[in-house]
Amino acid sequence: MPQSYYRYHVFFCINQREGGKPCCADKGSVAMRDYAKDRVKALGLDGKGKVRINQAGCLDRCTQGPTIVVYPEGVWYRYTGKEDIDAIIEEHLVQGQPVERLKI
Amino acid sequence: MPQSYYRYHVFFCINQREGGKPCCADKGSVAMRDYAKDRVKALGLDGKGKVRINQAGCLDRCTQGPTIVVYPEGVWYRYTGKEDIDAIIEEHLVQGQPVERLKI
Repeated sequence: MPQSYYRYHVFFCINQREGGKPCCADKGSVAMRDYAKDRVKALGLDGKGKVRINQAGCLDRCTQGPTIVVYPEGVWYRYTGKEDIDAIIEEHLVQGQPVERLKI
Repeated sequence: MPQSYYRYHVFFCINQREGGKPCCADKGSVAMRDYAKDRVKALGLDGKGKVRINQAGCLDRCTQGPTIVVYPEGVWYRYTGKEDIDAIIEEHLVQGQPVERLKI
């Protein structure tokens, strides 16, 4: 398989569901996506061959959210705040070691 | 590597850029995302272990758009309309053969 365009392509579910159903948007996912994007940029990790942080529509694992998925590995995480995002960036995206304790 | 949660996770860039800059949203990406989602559902391909169609923010390949990326393979496509979407669904998502002529 040829090398990925992005070494790590990270998708944050930021879907907003109606009627009080559990959803990632109600659990701070937009702010965490912004935070991750800023951190990755500040660390110089963003760009082709490196890391891309993206928002996505409903990833359909709503009750387990807020969720992100990291491709091409297909590793799924649930995070609770900035500390978890920092861990995912530092351990997975920098060191290449998925964060076992945050996996779903 | 464990099996992917989705066998094929497809992301459509639907980003809207300002000031007339090239962007996927101006090239019909929202309608094509909707079309793909409907087709995949009609074919019974959607769901865990199968196919997920998602919208995404800017995938940052704007001049080559409208773009989609299929993970975990990391295959990128440029499409021009429903015929291309049908080909990607039928050849790649059903038969497992990436559509070489649409790759970018």
